[in-house]
Amino acid sequence: MALPEPLARLIHELGRLPGVGPKSAQRLAFFLLSQDLSVVEGFAAAIVRAKKELFPCPQCFHITDRAPCGICADPERDRSLLLVVEEPKDVFALERTREYHGLYHVLGGSLQPLRGVGPEMLHIEELLRRLDKEPIQEVILATDPDVEGDTTALYVARLLQGRPLKVTRIARGLPMGGDIDYADDVTLVRSLEGRREFLP
Amino acid sequence: MALPEPLARLIHELGRLPGVGPKSAQRLAFFLLSQDLSVVEGFAAAIVRAKKELFPCPQCFHITDRAPCGICADPERDRSLLLVVEEPKDVFALERTREYHGLYHVLGGSLQPLRGVGPEMLHIEELLRRLDKEPIQEVILATDPDVEGDTTALYVARLLQGRPLKVTRIARGLPMGGDIDYADDVTLVRSLEGRREFLP
Repeated sequence: MALPEPLARLIHELGRLPGVGPKSAQRLAFFLLSQDLSVVEGFAAAIVRAKKELFPCPQCFHITDRAPCGICADPERDRSLLLVVEEPKDVFALERTREYHGLYHVLGGSLQPLRGVGPEMLHIEELLRRLDKEPIQEVILATDPDVEGDTTALYVARLLQGRPLKVTRIARGLPMGGDIDYADDVTLVRSLEGRREFLP
Repeated sequence: MALPEPLARLIHELGRLPGVGPKSAQRLAFFLLSQDLSVVEGFAAAIVRAKKELFPCPQCFHITDRAPCGICADPERDRSLLLVVEEPKDVFALERTREYHGLYHVLGGSLQPLRGVGPEMLHIEELLRRLDKEPIQEVILATDPDVEGDTTALYVARLLQGRPLKVTRIARGLPMGGDIDYADDVTLVRSLEGRREFLP
């Protein structure tokens, strides 16, 4: 006997989520069915509400429910610093550290020529326009430390050449709690290149 | 800066799903936000609809969108055979084999005295009432091959002693500590074929 249609549909929908295979989708479906209707309705409403109320900040393209976003609108922020990242989740990660107090600019991804993601699909034009208008003195390139992120950082850095700006790239090296023995070669080379005077 | 409230709420709700940690919840949230509104609304609607339209079959307690369920209502089914399982997902697993053509009875779990799950919380009373009324000749105990499942099978088998019934237990083709739901089809078929008389 086939699954009842509403269950088959639910499992199908859950199976479209990233990292959720058919077995996980079934487990999630039975979990949801085991909850009270009010809980399930709250869950569904949260999904639709998030989609309806969140949008990219018109200034920095971070995800927000107001325009401009809380960071762009915050008068305490250092407006001379602009940190460039690929995705909104990178902003959340950096904000968790509570160590950075400048502004952000979210590119919306990284350059991936083989997948057809060119500069015109990222918010690079808008970055240049911000630099024309805003009192930014340093641009910190914080794209991911992988081939696409490095390519993107290099592309942006070249565009910024000639401007009266300091352009920096976040440091590469061994992560806290890491193991030299287990680090990949590129990370080891980068951490050697980036070495600093100790006990200066 | 804190997350925008609709996003924080969405990540919180997704993090309540089994097997979804904070990182996965965030990844799922960004995935959902990257989809079109119509897709997201369809996803949310499928969740609520499944919860609203599905209920336990009043006869066998399998999950269904009609009463009685498709299996109980099917005139082709062998009404002399009753297969007792813990959960609806076990029925789906057994149905996938297309080898069993009798009826089912879903207990709704297994006996777990330490967690306060006693016989009165399972559909055991209803099982006995079915055996009084229906022309069942063999009860196949297909609870999970673990301690709780074995305990439950033993408990039910003892209740059935003295009735003019054959009571069988599916064969131990399944490893101890396993889960009927996760078994492959061939193992399931073998375990059906190899069933033995219980408490002879």
